[in-house]
Amino acid sequence: MSVLSVLPRPIVAAPMAGGPSTPALAAAVSAAGGLGFLAAGMISADRLVADVAEVRARTDRPFGVNVFLPTAGAVDEAAVRAYAERLAPEARRHGVTLGEPRGGDDGYPAKLAALLADPVPVVSFAFGLPDPAAVAALRERGTEVWATVNSPDAATAAVRLGVDAMVVQGTEAGGHRGGLPDDEDYALLPLLRLVAASCDRPLVAAGGIADGAGVAAVLTAGAAAAQLGTAFLRCPEAGTSPMHRAAAASAAPTALTRAFTGKRSRAVVNDFLRRHDRSAPVGYPQVLQLTRPLLAAARGSGDASVANLWAGQAHPLAKEAPAGDLVTELVAEARAALSAAADRSTAWG
Amino acid sequence: MSVLSVLPRPIVAAPMAGGPSTPALAAAVSAAGGLGFLAAGMISADRLVADVAEVRARTDRPFGVNVFLPTAGAVDEAAVRAYAERLAPEARRHGVTLGEPRGGDDGYPAKLAALLADPVPVVSFAFGLPDPAAVAALRERGTEVWATVNSPDAATAAVRLGVDAMVVQGTEAGGHRGGLPDDEDYALLPLLRLVAASCDRPLVAAGGIADGAGVAAVLTAGAAAAQLGTAFLRCPEAGTSPMHRAAAASAAPTALTRAFTGKRSRAVVNDFLRRHDRSAPVGYPQVLQLTRPLLAAARGSGDASVANLWAGQAHPLAKEAPAGDLVTELVAEARAALSAAADRSTAWG
Repeated sequence: MSVLSVLPRPIVAAPMAGGPSTPALAAAVSAAGGLGFLAAGMISADRLVADVAEVRARTDRPFGVNVFLPTAGAVDEAAVRAYAERLAPEARRHGVTLGEPRGGDDGYPAKLAALLADPVPVVSFAFGLPDPAAVAALRERGTEVWATVNSPDAATAAVRLGVDAMVVQGTEAGGHRGGLPDDEDYALLPLLRLVAASCDRPLVAAGGIADGAGVAAVLTAGAAAAQLGTAFLRCPEAGTSPMHRAAAASAAPTALTRAFTGKRSRAVVNDFLRRHDRSAPVGYPQVLQLTRPLLAAARGSGDASVANLWAGQAHPLAKEAPAGDLVTELVAEARAALSAAADRSTAWG
Repeated sequence: MSVLSVLPRPIVAAPMAGGPSTPALAAAVSAAGGLGFLAAGMISADRLVADVAEVRARTDRPFGVNVFLPTAGAVDEAAVRAYAERLAPEARRHGVTLGEPRGGDDGYPAKLAALLADPVPVVSFAFGLPDPAAVAALRERGTEVWATVNSPDAATAAVRLGVDAMVVQGTEAGGHRGGLPDDEDYALLPLLRLVAASCDRPLVAAGGIADGAGVAAVLTAGAAAAQLGTAFLRCPEAGTSPMHRAAAASAAPTALTRAFTGKRSRAVVNDFLRRHDRSAPVGYPQVLQLTRPLLAAARGSGDASVANLWAGQAHPLAKEAPAGDLVTELVAEARAALSAAADRSTAWG
């Protein structure tokens, strides 16, 4: 039985790598009856182990860890080099040198080994589908395995792999697209209905949900829970930078782009995105390795015109509130939205 | 008071120009307690008058007429000519000559005059926002005016114009994007929540809704009604071509493209879309005027590799059923989805 069926409140905190997801945020959401998540991407295996320990010290409720899978597929090295030349003036302007586009696996084997050695309640995967051996090994140790899917075909493949549940992520979501590359850009609502029509696993709806009515809508559409990331960006427990908090609170538009990392992700539109979006090649993590010093410098100096300000399409609805209070408010709003809709339905002919 | 607040069933049949929307389909949906729509785009004002008469002969329930606004904005004539050269071999292969890219207003003044002379219950506008004089004149005659919006900013502008209601169309919708060009590509659910947060008009949710759970989801998210187009494509009352029916019933992917008409629209991906998507210029109706003979030939010969097969992202869920039965089934499914979600919410902590 999935942890989703015994969750007191149908709210999952989306893993947000690169700072926002902290042990404090994950623990606060879990303690409030939702499911908190750690983001294992872009940190070391040792740091992951420490983060897991910190969540456990803060709460005895279940939580999850999201792991980036190594990205398969060839990278056009010439295109990455050309992009590096294009970005060189930006780097000079910020007094940094671009990184070396080496590739690599984000420490996946060590992170998987750590999660097998000391199991956590839930592991979700991003950037495609895990191999069957990893799924089997985690499940053997009592860890529930979730896959992230962006298309009905990927959901079918995930079910065949034997995953326990699926994060169904629509194109409105902030940050990286979590599924296989080259899928159709499905919005959440049709994707959820298409996946529900063909799969019998619990579904976690992700993308563009930032208030209780949005939560209620995806639950009505068949999701077992709603996964919200951007909605938690402004919580005091989140590790979000001040300029990222300001961007989330603004009404600025967002767009999907490869400009920051070489993999499509949704960010608040800024000068960097506008200047480089069309030139950015397919190439994760190589492009991220190139831009990392530049993005770190922008974060350090608070330069929002260059930083990667991940945000989903509903970001103007994100509130500044402690995470536990936010979970409580989301659930109350969701209950009210469901009850209002159910009331109105009694008048239908 | 909007017709939406007295509609027996919260289902609007989306206007589908180019064949699918017929007086028979509009009348069947209205007679079943929903709101049927005629599509005035791409037909003459005389034909519109005849279609309106036919709906009235079939039902005394309210219905709507959707009007294409003349597209403002300069067109790059050299780019349109280059696209014509690119398409010439396709035209030769189908034994037709491409049309003249003349521009034009789709007979808008004559259609507006007809709708003022003999008012209908609802007029909705596509391709931007109507001018204030048109809104005022229609409302004076007792016609309710709806605008189509793709962004929160457009919704704010529409409210300022004094429209009675708004069709909030997400990027998952089939056919043309109905709002102003150059908006962010908002998916339906976040768009609906953002617009609801800033506007106090009734909202009609459109895009990617093809079953009752989808209807229930958008009503829970605050919509007064759900507008479905693709879901009605396979009804016997619709004027959909056999190959378009087959495409709607398939699991084929869809994409937004300018290839067919010069304005972004969502269609089932076929050879023509794949070949020409990247080369198609911004230029409606010029590109449509170019391609029209080719698209007509493809429709005539049943060549699905070239035809414009408009469809929303949930098209595999569209069912073959009489429109009235479909409305009844959608409402029953929506009621069941709402009641299931409300039941589950009683267990939340």
